[in-house]
Amino acid sequence: MDMKGWYIQTLYVLAKLGALGKALEIDTKTLSRYINTSQQTASRRIVELYKGGYIQRTFSKRRQALILTSKGVELLREVYMNLHMIFNNITSIQFEGMVFTGLGEGAFYVSLPFYKQQFIDKLGFEPYPGTLNLRLKSVDDVAKRRNLELLPSINIEGYSNSSRTYGSVKCYHALVNNSIKAAVIICSRTHYGPDVLEVISPLNLRKELSLNDGDVVKVSVNLRDTMIPNISH
Amino acid sequence: MDMKGWYIQTLYVLAKLGALGKALEIDTKTLSRYINTSQQTASRRIVELYKGGYIQRTFSKRRQALILTSKGVELLREVYMNLHMIFNNITSIQFEGMVFTGLGEGAFYVSLPFYKQQFIDKLGFEPYPGTLNLRLKSVDDVAKRRNLELLPSINIEGYSNSSRTYGSVKCYHALVNNSIKAAVIICSRTHYGPDVLEVISPLNLRKELSLNDGDVVKVSVNLRDTMIPNISH
Repeated sequence: MDMKGWYIQTLYVLAKLGALGKALEIDTKTLSRYINTSQQTASRRIVELYKGGYIQRTFSKRRQALILTSKGVELLREVYMNLHMIFNNITSIQFEGMVFTGLGEGAFYVSLPFYKQQFIDKLGFEPYPGTLNLRLKSVDDVAKRRNLELLPSINIEGYSNSSRTYGSVKCYHALVNNSIKAAVIICSRTHYGPDVLEVISPLNLRKELSLNDGDVVKVSVNLRDTMIPNISH
Repeated sequence: MDMKGWYIQTLYVLAKLGALGKALEIDTKTLSRYINTSQQTASRRIVELYKGGYIQRTFSKRRQALILTSKGVELLREVYMNLHMIFNNITSIQFEGMVFTGLGEGAFYVSLPFYKQQFIDKLGFEPYPGTLNLRLKSVDDVAKRRNLELLPSINIEGYSNSSRTYGSVKCYHALVNNSIKAAVIICSRTHYGPDVLEVISPLNLRKELSLNDGDVVKVSVNLRDTMIPNISH
């Protein structure tokens, strides 16, 4: 990872100055004062953030304008979400979703030895071969689900062979209906949108809770035990 | 200012790891991986943050424990508050307070030429000699008033002569009762607590709004036009 210590600070200053959502006209000298560096360093940082895909840069009549890209915004939003959790002492997130029948791929993927062994090692349980799919009930829950992705997760690595690529998976310890140990999984390669929560568990949740399509299930994600995910920032 | 670009990132990582509110046992090698530096650099950063007063450091049985000091926490809280404003697109903050009679010092300070000229230059108006003191009505407002301090402000510099020191003042553009141009001022040397809002205006607010002690006044702080304050981070 190439992420440098100053990335967050420089993007943060640019956002404060107004480079989030619209282009900010700023010369390198002015920026250097705001980020407390020499002009040369400020100039190098802009180039590096640009090359890293964190900002877009345009010139008009020799004047420079900068705007954060979605990658830059996501990095700051991740910092924001984590600080939000820390300062508000939030250690769990509640979801409610309606059971629906998926395409059955979950069972296939969860059973792949490469994934399965990582689930055992990192989550501490062997998942039942199958995922419980929940359609989230409220817009708030969908927003929380989007934010969840930005929070510390347990990371299951993907792999590639000659014929195809298996994506990485983010996992979060969870409790289903306040009773059954489980994990929410967010697959990097999924065709579900952020209105769907995929849950795995050592138990067959459908059977254990006598669930049918359309039943409502509560999922409480526990953030307390999760290691920080991205060791670079 | 000595603030370096990596301060925010390193304090942020330490907070995520749990060094906020309680001591975190962590060796330098582990930290170096989380902040993406060499072990030597991580070690230097810890020393620098410690010397800067941002973290406390203890050793027990040769194991190092780190905890953010209130200065370190405040820096992160400032980042959090600013990102909160940015991501939630908050451009004003509303307060309600009850008029009370202060000690009359406001009139004295506001009239000092050194301050007065800065008010004119930086706020765009000559303040009426006197401040309107408001006792905030709700705990929420007191919390907002605390947070206000962390947000970008217009800064009036203090000065010292041989006999005494005059503190700096943070100012925020505001509107009183949705009609009268004003500014909220936060004096670094004040004997009021965070439950008090001090307001200045080109007009005599008491007279203009026929205010008596005990009357309730609304103040809307406008954050949109404020320049970013701390050019170092």
